[in-house]
Amino acid sequence: MIRSYLLVNLTDWDYLPLMERWLYKDHAPETMSQLAPILHRYATYRAVPAPMGGEAFGYYNWRMTEHWWAESPFKAGAMGHGSAISETWPKYYAKAVGIPSGEQARGKAWRAKAPAFIFVAPRPTESFKGDGITIEDGGILRWVVVFKYPGGVSKEEGDDWYIRIHAPEVCEQVGLKRFFSFSAVDPTSLIGPFIRVSELWYENHSSWRNAVLENPPQYSRPSWSRYDRFPFLEPDVDFVSTFLLERPECDFLKDYRGYNITA
Amino acid sequence: MIRSYLLVNLTDWDYLPLMERWLYKDHAPETMSQLAPILHRYATYRAVPAPMGGEAFGYYNWRMTEHWWAESPFKAGAMGHGSAISETWPKYYAKAVGIPSGEQARGKAWRAKAPAFIFVAPRPTESFKGDGITIEDGGILRWVVVFKYPGGVSKEEGDDWYIRIHAPEVCEQVGLKRFFSFSAVDPTSLIGPFIRVSELWYENHSSWRNAVLENPPQYSRPSWSRYDRFPFLEPDVDFVSTFLLERPECDFLKDYRGYNITA
Amino acid sequence: MIRSYLLVNLTDWDYLPLMERWLYKDHAPETMSQLAPILHRYATYRAVPAPMGGEAFGYYNWRMTEHWWAESPFKAGAMGHGSAISETWPKYYAKAVGIPSGEQARGKAWRAKAPAFIFVAPRPTESFKGDGITIEDGGILRWVVVFKYPGGVSKEEGDDWYIRIHAPEVCEQVGLKRFFSFSAVDPTSLIGPFIRVSELWYENHSSWRNAVLENPPQYSRPSWSRYDRFPFLEPDVDFVSTFLLERPECDFLKDYRGYNITA
Amino acid sequence: MIRSYLLVNLTDWDYLPLMERWLYKDHAPETMSQLAPILHRYATYRAVPAPMGGEAFGYYNWRMTEHWWAESPFKAGAMGHGSAISETWPKYYAKAVGIPSGEQARGKAWRAKAPAFIFVAPRPTESFKGDGITIEDGGILRWVVVFKYPGGVSKEEGDDWYIRIHAPEVCEQVGLKRFFSFSAVDPTSLIGPFIRVSELWYENHSSWRNAVLENPPQYSRPSWSRYDRFPFLEPDVDFVSTFLLERPECDFLKDYRGYNITA
Amino acid sequence: MIRSYLLVNLTDWDYLPLMERWLYKDHAPETMSQLAPILHRYATYRAVPAPMGGEAFGYYNWRMTEHWWAESPFKAGAMGHGSAISETWPKYYAKAVGIPSGEQARGKAWRAKAPAFIFVAPRPTESFKGDGITIEDGGILRWVVVFKYPGGVSKEEGDDWYIRIHAPEVCEQVGLKRFFSFSAVDPTSLIGPFIRVSELWYENHSSWRNAVLENPPQYSRPSWSRYDRFPFLEPDVDFVSTFLLERPECDFLKDYRGYNITA
Amino acid sequence: MIRSYLLVNLTDWDYLPLMERWLYKDHAPETMSQLAPILHRYATYRAVPAPMGGEAFGYYNWRMTEHWWAESPFKAGAMGHGSAISETWPKYYAKAVGIPSGEQARGKAWRAKAPAFIFVAPRPTESFKGDGITIEDGGILRWVVVFKYPGGVSKEEGDDWYIRIHAPEVCEQVGLKRFFSFSAVDPTSLIGPFIRVSELWYENHSSWRNAVLENPPQYSRPSWSRYDRFPFLEPDVDFVSTFLLERPECDFLKDYRGYNITA
Repeated sequence: MIRSYLLVNLTDWDYLPLMERWLYKDHAPETMSQLAPILHRYATYRAVPAPMGGEAFGYYNWRMTEHWWAESPFKAGAMGHGSAISETWPKYYAKAVGIPSGEQARGKAWRAKAPAFIFVAPRPTESFKGDGITIEDGGILRWVVVFKYPGGVSKEEGDDWYIRIHAPEVCEQVGLKRFFSFSAVDPTSLIGPFIRVSELWYENHSSWRNAVLENPPQYSRPSWSRYDRFPFLEPDVDFVSTFLLERPECDFLKDYRGYNITA
Repeated sequence: MIRSYLLVNLTDWDYLPLMERWLYKDHAPETMSQLAPILHRYATYRAVPAPMGGEAFGYYNWRMTEHWWAESPFKAGAMGHGSAISETWPKYYAKAVGIPSGEQARGKAWRAKAPAFIFVAPRPTESFKGDGITIEDGGILRWVVVFKYPGGVSKEEGDDWYIRIHAPEVCEQVGLKRFFSFSAVDPTSLIGPFIRVSELWYENHSSWRNAVLENPPQYSRPSWSRYDRFPFLEPDVDFVSTFLLERPECDFLKDYRGYNITA
Repeated sequence: MIRSYLLVNLTDWDYLPLMERWLYKDHAPETMSQLAPILHRYATYRAVPAPMGGEAFGYYNWRMTEHWWAESPFKAGAMGHGSAISETWPKYYAKAVGIPSGEQARGKAWRAKAPAFIFVAPRPTESFKGDGITIEDGGILRWVVVFKYPGGVSKEEGDDWYIRIHAPEVCEQVGLKRFFSFSAVDPTSLIGPFIRVSELWYENHSSWRNAVLENPPQYSRPSWSRYDRFPFLEPDVDFVSTFLLERPECDFLKDYRGYNITA
Repeated sequence: MIRSYLLVNLTDWDYLPLMERWLYKDHAPETMSQLAPILHRYATYRAVPAPMGGEAFGYYNWRMTEHWWAESPFKAGAMGHGSAISETWPKYYAKAVGIPSGEQARGKAWRAKAPAFIFVAPRPTESFKGDGITIEDGGILRWVVVFKYPGGVSKEEGDDWYIRIHAPEVCEQVGLKRFFSFSAVDPTSLIGPFIRVSELWYENHSSWRNAVLENPPQYSRPSWSRYDRFPFLEPDVDFVSTFLLERPECDFLKDYRGYNITA
Repeated sequence: MIRSYLLVNLTDWDYLPLMERWLYKDHAPETMSQLAPILHRYATYRAVPAPMGGEAFGYYNWRMTEHWWAESPFKAGAMGHGSAISETWPKYYAKAVGIPSGEQARGKAWRAKAPAFIFVAPRPTESFKGDGITIEDGGILRWVVVFKYPGGVSKEEGDDWYIRIHAPEVCEQVGLKRFFSFSAVDPTSLIGPFIRVSELWYENHSSWRNAVLENPPQYSRPSWSRYDRFPFLEPDVDFVSTFLLERPECDFLKDYRGYNITA
Repeated sequence: MIRSYLLVNLTDWDYLPLMERWLYKDHAPETMSQLAPILHRYATYRAVPAPMGGEAFGYYNWRMTEHWWAESPFKAGAMGHGSAISETWPKYYAKAVGIPSGEQARGKAWRAKAPAFIFVAPRPTESFKGDGITIEDGGILRWVVVFKYPGGVSKEEGDDWYIRIHAPEVCEQVGLKRFFSFSAVDPTSLIGPFIRVSELWYENHSSWRNAVLENPPQYSRPSWSRYDRFPFLEPDVDFVSTFLLERPECDFLKDYRGYNITA
């Protein structure tokens, strides 16, 4: 079983009415028609408005969609999506979500704000803080960060810093309630170059601002960093992020149906 | 059958995580437990971010929840909600949604940004423009406006202006696709003083800006107006509004369940 | 509460793939979006292939769709369907279902094989045979007949023959298991001129053939009849019919969803 | 809208496996097939084992099923249930639920332990204690009591005692959390002679025992009473009761489906 | 994951009312009770009436039911179906679907018109034409063909002709929109001797007639063929087929429930 | 795929109202939020009142909950339950279900009446009697027995007696309809020391009493037994049991939803 995080940003709110209609009227039913037998979860979370100052952290404004897959969707026929009948894409799709022109909907090239799609194990590879937290422990504002290390920094070198140096420092943030991370698995970086997803949970918008902007802990800058502020990775180049709540707007397999066809 | 529009604004995004949890985990299931037998529709629409400049129009940032009632919910026992067991309210509820302190969740007093709850007939009383529009006619950004006339202006006088003078002028807005209005029915102004709801539909954010801010038609200011700009009613005093899409985030009776109890 | 029977025939099987797609992908979700609050049942039965010889009895080959309405759907706004947004019709719709050219989807003019839409009380006005039958009494093949009396024959005169003379004779059919009838209520004959619906139930195809074609009882021809064979009404002029099973293919309000929008 | 309480007792646990199968496999789907358009709620609660000593209070051991009806189910055709096809009853039904031999499933005659079916308004006619209680106020064990006054005591006389004298005394029970009552409406006493339903809520089994058996308040015995102990009505003659939880085992219209047929 | 196609024909329409009732009332709920944990899709498509001339192509008139299995259903206990409790079969089952007398419901022997049950990989092994087609490309009439090669012709020899010679010729059919094929996997030919399933898609009935009967391309007859017309395999001996639409009548795991029991 | 049986007893009915609320309002939704992607079935059966004399057989009075797992839930993160957010437990949980004080909710230590949780293959390892039984063969009262052999008796030695000697003798019980058994798989004895589950099915309560207490067959006592009566294992030490019906009260994945959150 593998799990994926897909962050999608709209380049302009003008695309919102038609993109939402396409998602619910066409795309989700087609995805379920074609892939439901290998999907164990298919849920979408709407992005919460960023706390003031949060947009600078590579903020994605539309959605994070999460899939749990029984098997890799890249086997023959699965990615089309279906093998019998294919999914439909609005002709303005690439523009609406920022895919470089000439690139396919699920191509490998990536530029700032294009969809970020990353595959991970179902459970985090590292739990840094707050293990055992429950819903009774107050509000949850999830800051989901998808990232890589800069060119020239190996995953091992980067991870050594992130896990051994950086994460313990982040745990000193005032009001950080939960912090865990997933190392990407194959297929790595399906869309975009990313290799890790981390989730950092706060009580609410003010708590995030306080922890990240107003009263940050001391951080050690890695020697290889070319970006001198937390998180020492360049926004929209080395990382993107979004803010989510605990509840998916829609858990498609459980709560949604639509026009269902052969696969 | 009567229908109601309930607009709710959050006074601070900090309330968002807990208010969303309360809505879906506690409130909607309790409402359905207690009122489903008299509810024929119970759907919630999330507010879309306002177009730039739109926040000045008494913008409500959280939700519009729509109910269709088989009968008035103000009969004995129904408003508690249930008669056997009552609904739960978070203790920060009044602060989160801006209810004046000392006022009840569904009290009659109203001040700027407090919930606006208005009852109307199931179908509009006036259709000014775009009758017959379908989903094939492009995107839909709904501007939902709940309003009254200023103190001293009777409903008849106000409506005479709104229907005979103002609405035809509004129909001249470039790109206005659909425009209809509902005159309130009993129980009028359950929360707040409002007496009409209108919906104005545009293609998207830019279309709204163009129609309302950048290239407005000529409007006639009513003699009684104390607010000199469109719509000649004072924001957050005489009217509030929000921006919605065509699809409810959740149609509770169809798509949601939760912990169900006796009524 | 009123109930309606809507029989629809396809003029050519070539329309089947697109008409089925329109029904499930577009039409049923739009109908539910716009009318669900006043619909208490909305179910569709596919026509069973007619027994040999059955096609001559004004057989409709596609569907019978049944609605139960809380109130008349002809109140302002309801028939469009919605008041805010209207339903979509395929451009080949009139041709596909045999509506006379120039006539609207729900117009009053009718010709052979055009949709027949008739409103009745929720329960039959007459039960001629088999009251108390249960599912344990064997198979059920429903012959649903929608009819009127010929021009010049009043409803009273026609009903006098149908109820007093004809129905008792029909009850003598070998193997007829159940026979009941509904007299139309307002809005009468929404599409088409019909004033009654009757259901006659048989064990299966052979039973129908035996009862109706091979071993019919003696029938009395009414003096006003211009058609000399059972049922003494001219097929496709004075009556149409179809064959159904006990189970709806889809009970939309219970078992179907789709893209749900504002009404 | 009217609401009904139906208490059913099994005369022997030996009937349990087949009666449960009949209820869920046959009866509920048939009821929904035939009556769903006029049912606004159809939920069943399983009886909780009685607290020690509770069986003496006319305890019903199987279920309370609750219906909310858009209209009286006694109109033509509705009680059969369906008009087209009727519901099935197991041949041991009368024995299993204690219906007097020779009596119909929904006949008027009643004897001890036979089903008790009573129609009331949707909301209580009297709320004696605990109005405003919520789920956050602890556990809820509902004692549901269906009763009449002894022969010779008029409803007015009986109610005068019950509402003016008895209920205030009952409110003195230690640990009684909630107490409300419904006066029957037409059709009164469909099965059985009863004219009132009351619900008394306790924290749990021990609380009921303490309040009712171990530390009862002082009660005034009505002059007409022929039964000298609380509640001054003869068990299984003048009243029956059962113990329920707050959550229905199944809310059929929301959470259940089954084989669906024509009505 | 494996997928199966099950084509079932009714030997007489007289079986239709009871077979449909058995399928929906008994069989599908039993199958789901016993096998749902290993089923990832369980959907049934009703056969569309054959285009004129289509019945001669080994046409099956009732249904194609499709399963996606997490694992082979032939492991101990799964085929009975359940291990605890077994499924029920109507006593006329073998006659209704044409199973040779003395043979079991899922036996290996096969004769003309008996059910054809074949297991394949989830995605086609060959896509001959129309890859990438979407729902926007018009109507879809699916011709599903299950076949083997005549006695004495090895799978290799047969496939060499089918894939290298025949399929490219079929792709020349006027109006053929899509053509793909699955090679059977273990358990091969559970019911019946078949080793391949192909799907050929047309716009509608007329398109099939035009492509297959009226304006066929030139075909090369294989040397081993004992049947001199397209498709060079003997109907009801070497192949059977049916016509379906894109939408399943029922996707049981998503859209259906029923009486659910232990497995 | 593995399957588990979880028997839970309440130490006092006083816990019933709050434990039922916790199960349906909090626990099942949390379990589904966190584990649904690896759960293929998650159903709960309420315990039926024991036949008279049945309580002495280590009777558990509350529930048996059954899970089918795609993979072991003991992989990193799954047992907490979630890795991101953990499940909530009422503070009286250990007391309510009889977990030894100081032990965790899913700890290994076990004492009489504490939850018994055992993992098995999806299908029985032994079917002793009644293979092929269907729902048409009458009522089903399931006696579910979870057991181990006494200290000092190896699984091999114990199984040799159980399968070779004891089971055939049990099959002689008058009225025993079905008897099958599962040998535990890893993770063995998650909660409690048990190594086998058997199901014995009877027509009803009286049949159980007759078969087990009133007219038992001759049994051979194993030499190692320290308990001299059937089943030669000490109740609440070497075995526990409960009585269930064929239908789960709730099949959570199919029929239940609730507040759904991230995992």
